[in-house]
Order: sequence, then structure tokens, then C-alpha cells
Amino acid sequence: MMRPVAKGLISIIRAFSNPNVAGILRLQTQWNSPSAFQNIRPLSMSLWPFSAQPRDFSLPNASWSPEMRRVYDHYIALCEVETIGGEKKTGPWRKLPSYNRTLKYAKGGTYLSKMIQSKARLFTRSIKEHGAAFEYVIFVNKQEKRCVCVFQAGRLLEGPPGHVHGGAIATMIDTVMGGLAACLSGPIMTANLNISYRSPITLGSVVLIHSALDHVEGRKTFLTCRVTSTDETKLHTEATALFVSINVGHLFGT
Amino acid sequence: MMRPVAKGLISIIRAFSNPNVAGILRLQTQWNSPSAFQNIRPLSMSLWPFSAQPRDFSLPNASWSPEMRRVYDHYIALCEVETIGGEKKTGPWRKLPSYNRTLKYAKGGTYLSKMIQSKARLFTRSIKEHGAAFEYVIFVNKQEKRCVCVFQAGRLLEGPPGHVHGGAIATMIDTVMGGLAACLSGPIMTANLNISYRSPITLGSVVLIHSALDHVEGRKTFLTCRVTSTDETKLHTEATALFVSINVGHLFGT
Repeated sequence: MMRPVAKGLISIIRAFSNPNVAGILRLQTQWNSPSAFQNIRPLSMSLWPFSAQPRDFSLPNASWSPEMRRVYDHYIALCEVETIGGEKKTGPWRKLPSYNRTLKYAKGGTYLSKMIQSKARLFTRSIKEHGAAFEYVIFVNKQEKRCVCVFQAGRLLEGPPGHVHGGAIATMIDTVMGGLAACLSGPIMTANLNISYRSPITLGSVVLIHSALDHVEGRKTFLTCRVTSTDETKLHTEATALFVSINVGHLFGT
Repeated sequence: MMRPVAKGLISIIRAFSNPNVAGILRLQTQWNSPSAFQNIRPLSMSLWPFSAQPRDFSLPNASWSPEMRRVYDHYIALCEVETIGGEKKTGPWRKLPSYNRTLKYAKGGTYLSKMIQSKARLFTRSIKEHGAAFEYVIFVNKQEKRCVCVFQAGRLLEGPPGHVHGGAIATMIDTVMGGLAACLSGPIMTANLNISYRSPITLGSVVLIHSALDHVEGRKTFLTCRVTSTDETKLHTEATALFVSINVGHLFGT
């Protein structure tokens, strides 16, 4: 049972106390994302729980390997295309921003400690040192209902000696598939992840995480995922996932 | 394809280049564990890649909540029982030790950077600050072929505001189920994780992760898992997993 929460914007968390809606809400990468929230923005702006535009962590930094930068540049180029007349316009791909916190900006709340309210950080962005943990950028192609994430695995993600922990791979799969599901279906929560590990990922290396829509059934969004080498010749991991749509009005207590 | 590695104990990683053996090897919690390695210790001691007994991180610290400590004390008491004559003897439960690194102790190696070799850390133990990330202890009951992990989720594991990230839950499920599988079947690697999220876990709270053997088929070990509140009345997450046994001699190049 959830304990009672104070009035105010921390009531956002009430959505998670619904036992019929399973899993994890995808807020982290979607805040301020027009495509994900275009239908609910007028509703939610008056209750917007964030104080300002947060910092985007999915931008190049000195820890990125040449391979990480090469793949990033490839997809960035696809985000803007040049027309015959020489003008630039939005391309088929779009880079999702990625922030490191949500709770900091929420007001009120009594059942979480003040320390957690002030210092909570998104799991994938909680390590400040560049390159030490998860370095990643998600690119979405909404028309083709798919996305690609370029992911460089840092030294703090070790499982077997010299290789990435299965839980760190699951974390990225959940993050990427959830990001795509939210872009396609709006606010959602993870209900199921089914992950098959085919071959381990070397610590420090760069891989691609491809995800695509399988089908939608009412409130359920089904997706597939493949983790491969950057040249796509080696399959590291496969996954399927189910996400359940939630009513964003419920999130804001409306 | 894996690139060639230098001779020496870093050749331990060659085991992971076998594309027919899926997933993640469970070394982290099992090193020096007599039950997991009793059959291979004479073989492997001469090639032991660690310099000394590492520090056990699954011991009480100041960040633990009273509830975390209460559950820990409950299971610790079951690790040693008193006979009718007043003597103490080993009980049905055993606490697994948990270390924060393996690669540091491996020699040689050319394809991983020196930085990664020296600074790699086990994913679940990579944050130094007590209580900020994963605080957990695994207790195994080998006779009943099951285990219980007491897990306190720190402020750096956030997914939805105020709640634990699905990837952090997957990480703990992988760690706990892999720990039990290794105790029962010896060295193994994760082949599949199938996780259903039923209700979210509040950041900062303590939950139990129960895992039990389902069945063994040749080299395959199948297990089940349930994440519950500490009073076991609330179900947060359910999972099944498949682990595949590997030849530990192969790990050491013998």
C-alpha cells in the first residue's frame, strides 16, 4: 500500500499507486517532447512540475570514443536534411533529450524523505563523471515507428570481468524501448520485459540498441529490440516489451 | 568478433567470446564461495586471478534503515542455530559475500584500456557513497534451493519520480537469481530474463527479492523470482530466468 501523500505536485506519484497499471512511467526522456506530449500540453502546463528547462545529457563529451562520435554524427545528419533548393528542413530522425532528474522539481510530498526529494537522480544519468557509466543518445524515426540508441558502456557497469552487467544492458533496453513507446503512444509504463542474452558486450565498447513497434492493442504497446555491434554484424541481445498507456491527467491530479 | 587478448590471466575473459554461451557469468558474488566452487577450486587456485581476499560490501552500514537492519538480523540469526546442548552450528541459511571488482586483479590484457582494467567496478557496487544506490544482502538456503535478498533502493536509482527505475529492479533480479543459480549449478551465465512489473517500488524503501529453483535440464537451470514488500503482502515484480552452465576450466584457459 502507498502511504498518503501531501497535496501538491508530488501527487504526480499517485499514478504509480494504481495496482492495475504495471511498471515504470517513461517521463525522463519525454518531458518537453512535443511529439510525446502534444495532446496533453495545454492540460498540463498549468501544473508543470519543473522550474526550468533542464540540461540535456545526451550530447557529445570528451569521454566519447571516435566510434561513439561517428555514429552520433551519422544520425545527427539525418535529423536535418537539405532540400533541392538548398534549404534545410527537419529530417526523418529526431534526437531525444535526456535529463538527470525529475523529483527535484516536484513540490510538496511528505512520505519521501527530504534527502531523497532533493538528491534523487535518474538511474541512467546519476553518475556525474563523463564516460564512467551510461553514455547514450536515442534517435527516433517516428514515421518508421523505430529508434536507434548509440550506447557506450563505462567502467562502472561491469558484470563479468571486462564485460557489461546483464542488469546494465536491461536498464538500457528498458530506457530505449520505453522512450520509443512514449513517443508513439504517449505516457506509458513498462509491464513486461523479456530479454535474451546472446553474447556479452565488452566494457568500454559502443553498441547500437535498435527498437521497433510490433503492434498496438488498445492501451497495450508491444515492441521489439536488438542490441548489436555498430556495424550490425554481431547480435548481443534480443528483447520484447509490453508498455501500458496511462492517463496523463491522472498524473497531475486532474 | 573478439579481438585477440594477451596471454595471462586476462584470458579469463575468453570464456565470454563463445557465441554459443549466452549471457553473463556470475562471478561477482561467488568468488571464494565454497558451495559454488567446491568442485573447481583445486583446478583454479593456481590460476587464481585475485591478489587477496576482497572486502565484503554486504554488511550493515549507517545508511541502512531500521527495516533493512531488522530483516538482515532475522536472516543472520538463521545462519547459525543453537543445538539442544547449547552449541552453535551452521543453520539452514548462508549469507553470500559481495565484492565490488574482479578485473582489477587480472593481469595482462591488451584489448581493454589500462583505465578500464584498473578502474572497472561491479555495476551493483560501483557507487562508494553508502545508501546512494544498491544496498543489498543475499541469503541462500541451499537445502530448500531458494534465496532471499533484502534490498534497499537508494536515491540514485530513480526512474519515475520517487520510484525505482525498471532497469535497477532488473539489475537486482539478475544479480539475485544469478547468485542462486551459481550456488546450485556452479558457474553459469544468464541466457534469459523475463520480468513482469506489477507495482512500482518507492525510492528509499526496502523490499525482499525471493528466488527459487524451478528445474534443471542438463546445462540449463530455470528459476523463478518475486519482489515483494518486507511483510510479503504486496507483489512488486515477478520474473523467470534461464541460466546456462559453463565449464570453469575454460575460464582459466585449462
